Amino acid sequence: MDQKLLIDTIVAKVLRNLQGGDGANKAGSPKNIVERGTSSAARISHASPRDIASYIDHTMLRPEAQTDAFDRLCEEALTYGFYSVCVNSCRVAYVARKLQGTPVKVCSVIGFPLGAMTSRVKAFEAREAISDGASELDMVINIGFLKSGDYRVVEEDIRAVRRATRANTVLKVIIETALLTQDQKIMACEIAKKAGADFVKTCTGFAGGGATVEDIALMRRVVGKNMGVKASGSVRSYEKAVSLIGAGATRIGAVSSIAIVSDQV
Amino acid sequence: MDQKLLIDTIVAKVLRNLQGGDGANKAGSPKNIVERGTSSAARISHASPRDIASYIDHTMLRPEAQTDAFDRLCEEALTYGFYSVCVNSCRVAYVARKLQGTPVKVCSVIGFPLGAMTSRVKAFEAREAISDGASELDMVINIGFLKSGDYRVVEEDIRAVRRATRANTVLKVIIETALLTQDQKIMACEIAKKAGADFVKTCTGFAGGGATVEDIALMRRVVGKNMGVKASGSVRSYEKAVSLIGAGATRIGAVSSIAIVSDQV
Repeated sequence: MDQKLLIDTIVAKVLRNLQGGDGANKAGSPKNIVERGTSSAARISHASPRDIASYIDHTMLRPEAQTDAFDRLCEEALTYGFYSVCVNSCRVAYVARKLQGTPVKVCSVIGFPLGAMTSRVKAFEAREAISDGASELDMVINIGFLKSGDYRVVEEDIRAVRRATRANTVLKVIIETALLTQDQKIMACEIAKKAGADFVKTCTGFAGGGATVEDIALMRRVVGKNMGVKASGSVRSYEKAVSLIGAGATRIGAVSSIAIVSDQV
Repeated sequence: MDQKLLIDTIVAKVLRNLQGGDGANKAGSPKNIVERGTSSAARISHASPRDIASYIDHTMLRPEAQTDAFDRLCEEALTYGFYSVCVNSCRVAYVARKLQGTPVKVCSVIGFPLGAMTSRVKAFEAREAISDGASELDMVINIGFLKSGDYRVVEEDIRAVRRATRANTVLKVIIETALLTQDQKIMACEIAKKAGADFVKTCTGFAGGGATVEDIALMRRVVGKNMGVKASGSVRSYEKAVSLIGAGATRIGAVSSIAIVSDQV
């Protein structure tokens, strides 16, 4: 373990323990960290570096990405054993066809990246994406209503998408940490949990900021052990990915996925 | 007329003439410039500085904007006589209620800002926004399919939204100039025109770049005199707005709308 990773892991564990919460002291062992999450979320049973690929949603959300970029995305996911490919909804049907019969799942973003369409539109997009082959949905929370203190609207927004999903659909809620205060991050996680989401997720990648060990530790503490936590935004190295997993992440969203798995020793 | 404005206006006119096109030579007079556009688009009958407010879609699209920001947006639009307020679809119903019975129109963005949801989702969002009170829709083109050369998909994407609109709905197509080559800008304008859009529009404001005199002149040349051209992205001064109008813009999208009208002499 190199120095930076060592430092990050220690920082993460100290933070989680300082922040308290249910089972914080017990939760420090690597085994417990990665076994957290719902049955749908906690597909990862051990945190060996060899398996980091299976944490990764291999992601391509740039609007200008051309069709060949999605061919590569799917091929790379198969070659490296990434958990899923994560795309905008207009590309779901295409990647689902390419990945049919493989273990790689298809994840669609919903209401992305502003989260500022109506709940009915998000729910419609969710149904479309599932019908096109997505089994995971990463929706963006309504940030403006959250910051306005309209928590009921924020919760109903997530519930609208939840109702549009199937029993086996994994629903992640992107809280967009870069735009929130500490209290708003906590509130967003509490609302997502209450509304029945499977995961909370840090960032869209379009609003600045990125996944930090501190935010992941906070999100894990708030949602407890029965939800997933996805770290996304500026995760570009093996060391960073492992430090985020150490802090409580059960999934990594990454564009630089190959760099992450190639780094590992 | 100050030096900068003079220079910009001359540059715009020379460019438009150099680029040729139907009636380019005749089109140089201020009267002709502002009289272009469809009957729905060409609400502006003269380009006097006193009337620049009536060119402006007063815009608030930041996802973190709170409810009071939309109160201010509406009040400012009424105070200064802006043409419309432009918001994300989750805020359309709210601003429409506030502006009911006033001359200020409500404009909703659609598929914003990536343009990367399915056409059915964009069409659904369009119907929702109209039902909530929007009379103008600014949709984002499918940038990835455009760059992939899948022009039929791009055209059908716009047609899907066009079919979802009412007879008096103004449909603008954001081509996101910052992500396109010169040839792609031309193709985007041609497709938008063919698909029955009322306007082409430069930028979302979320992908860098901004409205330039060169792009507006190009877009005006491609769409001809019977469509609107909306200049948006980094329009923050009266001089800039007037230079864009001089180049062929019939609408200005702005956040700094008050600075623009306050600048004018």
